[in-house]
Amino acid sequence: MIKTGIVGANGYTGFELMRLLAAHPQAEVTFASSRSLAGEEAAKTYPALRGAYGGMKYSEFSLDEAKKCDVVFACLPHGQSAEICGELVDAGVRVIDLSADYRYDDVSLYESTYKLTHPRKDLCAQAVYGLPEYNRDRIKNARLIGNPGCYVTASVLALKPLADAGLIDKRTVIVDAKSGVSGAGRKADIAYNFNETEGSFKAYGVTTHRHTTEIEEKSGTRVTFVPHLLPIKRGILATIYCDLKADAAEVDKAYARYENEPFVHYLGGELPEIKSVAGSNCCYIGCKAEAKTGRLIAVSCIDNLIKGASGQAVQNMNIMFGLDETVGLPRVGFHL
Amino acid sequence: MIKTGIVGANGYTGFELMRLLAAHPQAEVTFASSRSLAGEEAAKTYPALRGAYGGMKYSEFSLDEAKKCDVVFACLPHGQSAEICGELVDAGVRVIDLSADYRYDDVSLYESTYKLTHPRKDLCAQAVYGLPEYNRDRIKNARLIGNPGCYVTASVLALKPLADAGLIDKRTVIVDAKSGVSGAGRKADIAYNFNETEGSFKAYGVTTHRHTTEIEEKSGTRVTFVPHLLPIKRGILATIYCDLKADAAEVDKAYARYENEPFVHYLGGELPEIKSVAGSNCCYIGCKAEAKTGRLIAVSCIDNLIKGASGQAVQNMNIMFGLDETVGLPRVGFHL
Amino acid sequence: MIKTGIVGANGYTGFELMRLLAAHPQAEVTFASSRSLAGEEAAKTYPALRGAYGGMKYSEFSLDEAKKCDVVFACLPHGQSAEICGELVDAGVRVIDLSADYRYDDVSLYESTYKLTHPRKDLCAQAVYGLPEYNRDRIKNARLIGNPGCYVTASVLALKPLADAGLIDKRTVIVDAKSGVSGAGRKADIAYNFNETEGSFKAYGVTTHRHTTEIEEKSGTRVTFVPHLLPIKRGILATIYCDLKADAAEVDKAYARYENEPFVHYLGGELPEIKSVAGSNCCYIGCKAEAKTGRLIAVSCIDNLIKGASGQAVQNMNIMFGLDETVGLPRVGFHL
Amino acid sequence: MIKTGIVGANGYTGFELMRLLAAHPQAEVTFASSRSLAGEEAAKTYPALRGAYGGMKYSEFSLDEAKKCDVVFACLPHGQSAEICGELVDAGVRVIDLSADYRYDDVSLYESTYKLTHPRKDLCAQAVYGLPEYNRDRIKNARLIGNPGCYVTASVLALKPLADAGLIDKRTVIVDAKSGVSGAGRKADIAYNFNETEGSFKAYGVTTHRHTTEIEEKSGTRVTFVPHLLPIKRGILATIYCDLKADAAEVDKAYARYENEPFVHYLGGELPEIKSVAGSNCCYIGCKAEAKTGRLIAVSCIDNLIKGASGQAVQNMNIMFGLDETVGLPRVGFHL
Repeated sequence: MIKTGIVGANGYTGFELMRLLAAHPQAEVTFASSRSLAGEEAAKTYPALRGAYGGMKYSEFSLDEAKKCDVVFACLPHGQSAEICGELVDAGVRVIDLSADYRYDDVSLYESTYKLTHPRKDLCAQAVYGLPEYNRDRIKNARLIGNPGCYVTASVLALKPLADAGLIDKRTVIVDAKSGVSGAGRKADIAYNFNETEGSFKAYGVTTHRHTTEIEEKSGTRVTFVPHLLPIKRGILATIYCDLKADAAEVDKAYARYENEPFVHYLGGELPEIKSVAGSNCCYIGCKAEAKTGRLIAVSCIDNLIKGASGQAVQNMNIMFGLDETVGLPRVGFHL
Repeated sequence: MIKTGIVGANGYTGFELMRLLAAHPQAEVTFASSRSLAGEEAAKTYPALRGAYGGMKYSEFSLDEAKKCDVVFACLPHGQSAEICGELVDAGVRVIDLSADYRYDDVSLYESTYKLTHPRKDLCAQAVYGLPEYNRDRIKNARLIGNPGCYVTASVLALKPLADAGLIDKRTVIVDAKSGVSGAGRKADIAYNFNETEGSFKAYGVTTHRHTTEIEEKSGTRVTFVPHLLPIKRGILATIYCDLKADAAEVDKAYARYENEPFVHYLGGELPEIKSVAGSNCCYIGCKAEAKTGRLIAVSCIDNLIKGASGQAVQNMNIMFGLDETVGLPRVGFHL
Repeated sequence: MIKTGIVGANGYTGFELMRLLAAHPQAEVTFASSRSLAGEEAAKTYPALRGAYGGMKYSEFSLDEAKKCDVVFACLPHGQSAEICGELVDAGVRVIDLSADYRYDDVSLYESTYKLTHPRKDLCAQAVYGLPEYNRDRIKNARLIGNPGCYVTASVLALKPLADAGLIDKRTVIVDAKSGVSGAGRKADIAYNFNETEGSFKAYGVTTHRHTTEIEEKSGTRVTFVPHLLPIKRGILATIYCDLKADAAEVDKAYARYENEPFVHYLGGELPEIKSVAGSNCCYIGCKAEAKTGRLIAVSCIDNLIKGASGQAVQNMNIMFGLDETVGLPRVGFHL
Repeated sequence: MIKTGIVGANGYTGFELMRLLAAHPQAEVTFASSRSLAGEEAAKTYPALRGAYGGMKYSEFSLDEAKKCDVVFACLPHGQSAEICGELVDAGVRVIDLSADYRYDDVSLYESTYKLTHPRKDLCAQAVYGLPEYNRDRIKNARLIGNPGCYVTASVLALKPLADAGLIDKRTVIVDAKSGVSGAGRKADIAYNFNETEGSFKAYGVTTHRHTTEIEEKSGTRVTFVPHLLPIKRGILATIYCDLKADAAEVDKAYARYENEPFVHYLGGELPEIKSVAGSNCCYIGCKAEAKTGRLIAVSCIDNLIKGASGQAVQNMNIMFGLDETVGLPRVGFHL
């Protein structure tokens, strides 16, 4: 059994890791730390955990405990994660960081985006971007994984094949993305009160959202990125617009690279919807070319908590420990 | 034009008063005070108000301003309302209090229920319980109205005809009620975060909810009251169980008292649902007798923010100022 | 009192007309016809109507009855509406057609879009496009109104000021629109079953949606239009992308044309959300310019059943009969 | 690997079986038949199945195919299931029937409840009621399982310990139950259209719902049963009222029987909510005694599609084939 620890376990990605790992046949959760809820039963905050975790309590973070783990998942806010992940790596523990702190190739882009000084620039070069469909080989031996952002996963999996194949004008990309409310995390914020969210819909972070630069760096395109808040709990759908420079048939060929991927499915001209992927670790992608304008419209869907966060983290763990990449990960979405 | 003021206008019942009064042909909002948001535009918190109220700002409460009003609506928390309403009444302003502070006939029952000492017992006797279907005549000349609770309105309108006619065993009453989340008010509380509420359902306040004693006092029955939280914004449905002591045909006769009511509709054996009343000031009631057990099952629905709070308050205002009781009040629910 | 009739009253726009007209002080519903539900009480399908309409039944359509009306609202499917509206106009009745049949200036564009032959081309020239903010003068004396489509209203109100002022490249317009499910009408279709829709989100009609040509004709731009289905009942939000050719300050000037409009509100750089307009006849518009790309991102919101259909129809009626344009129309959205 | 077949696989319980079995390490789906969709890819109806089932098509039912299975799950409507299950059992195939046809001990009660003549009374006696917490031993060797109803599972797991221990007055039981819309199945019915369901809530089947007699038979109590329709996809919460004849402490002792159950958790005075069990095979139960009335209020929650149908069916399969009862079944609910 792989011993895993979770730092910052009381948030939604921490919960989702505990949920997924409870069904993983070759991994177990050794500790789940939480600064704010240390000493409290995890099942008090998440009663769903009672069956699988009994009276397990959130602990204070302890490096000694963490060292006993084979891998630690860090579910801390951006900026707070870099140092603690660094300490763990220094101590020889393999780390999967769900924050943005180790995602960027270009540290200065990270620093300008997050308005922070990176405290462990020494580690950035060895950190591997945890998008298995592109970095599988490097993930295998990585000591430190920067697990991709949710919007980024949905966007890059759709954009990169097109950009890499030179099929699109890279300066025309618009990503109109829509996310469920769990993307905002577990917060006592009036903006996410049920009454203020249910039955409504809005754009937010227009021209300023921090995932923009990560999408740009990882897809190699320039992007207008407009995220919106959907009145659902889970799921992201990104509608992507770009000028097509090649024949529409080339698009299918570019996406053929996903043919043998267990979790990324290209549907051709059929456009995916959120209910097909919510609850699974899958990304579904579909495309339509518009003759009138020469534009390509691509739609990409994931579950933001699974393929967009905790599921992808477990997928990375599976690769790091030489397991079948799909072990313990749901391949069928809830639909209902 | 009736000049109205609203104290504590930044909460949901305050907003709903502003929404309803914007469509009222014979009343206008003169001031809307808010301690926490004084000086801010109301449209910042509720952008929906922009069209009808332009740049109107929440003010600090001022007795001098309030005195210029014909009537003031108090939308303050229980316990905080009694004194300010008292001051207004002392100053000769007519008051409609949406809190529980002036609802009870028996002040000691109020005090034991709310665990408070009532600061203005002198006014309690002259306060009129603002349930128009029962107190129309007294409301007309009232200086101080105790506007009924939302669960209480739904429950009492269904129970009282049965209890008054002696058709039911008053010790067998169970009210299993379900309310939308707006009933909890405008709060930055994790319990009402969208992610924690949407797609779920729970009972709360079991055996301890404060509306229990108000239902008991106003219906003249003993009640087991179990409220539940529905993942919708507006609306209450109460399913009421009691032992029937008379022939089922007597039930229709008892409800015939509502025949000419503009807002209370008895549907016989057809059971109402929330979408029929949400958005209107109506209460719909239906009943089924169960032969096997001799029980009566009554279902009662209202919009908790309208007939359960702000709409009923406007109905009371209409009566107090000699207007047609229905003026400015929606008689058709949203359905959609 | 203006006598109004509704043809095809059993659908959602018919219901919404009955709901709005119940609160209109100077109009009343004389008949509500429905082929499929003739003879049935309207309150059976829409119990919310019981209070205001009592036992009123849907009737078979009768030209004789219709002739007694001052105005008839036609709520029939596209293609079925043209002839019956023609008969009414021939008989001297003023008509507001909520279908697409009389919306287009270019009848051949209608015919290619809807794949129909228009049976009353003779009337198309005299039909007036019922967008009050642009056609107020012609609406006043119109005998036949083509009431705009819901997506079109949201899109054109945002696009036209920009296009008219020459601020944008008209070939770069992308409208990424999101609509509540009521836009699909009242249908026993598995695709709109609660289980298949709630918690999900999808694009549909990509490159083929029929509102595309109406948006193009009325805004004078070429449009990539991608509608999506939101898991909410009411409301449309359109996120509009286009290349800005002028200084961003010009944008505010272009939208100043709405300054005195009762129902269209320009918010500058604040972006509207659906909850602010749902339940009202308002359209809210906001804009952000993106320096990096030179693009303008405009967001426009309406209630698809009100400003996008039945409310706009009532607004047109008010103008046709010389009333204050806002009479009987909600100016404050539900928010909740 | 256990070879399983699914008859009537296109409905929601059939889908849920395919979803659960995709994650089951010791079972696989050999065929999935559907009369109405035979020849079509399952992923056309449920795109979520694409990843795990590829292009698998629904087949016509064939007894020869079914005979190759170790067990067949029947997901057919009540009345249509009895004969086909009978044929399968005759042919030596073990069968888990998700319909009501083999649930009742008293066949005449089944016949009066469902208004049908049972075509295979010969098999009823050997059919085992598939509630593992009570019938584990008989399930082990059963050839034919009558898998319990969803409302019944939630109600009986809460009621039976109380009734068996003689703690309650069995004639005072009221079950006020609330279910998500998936309980109504996959139907093109206007009543379950998103617009007619979202934001609303209603009682249905009052005094007539067919699960009433099954609850009564399995719990040994007389029940007033009132189901309601929640605007959520999954989950049942039953609020149960009964007169307590014993000390409240006895209640905890009665529920101690579930102490070692993997899927049934008694929470004492903490009342469960749907989000804690939705997505898992768990049932959570909590209780409060009300001193004023001597009533006990018990709340029981399950996921109607999992513990209330397909998950319980898999649990039964695990027992029948000597596997650990929990294999392949989710123990942690979604929460989100």
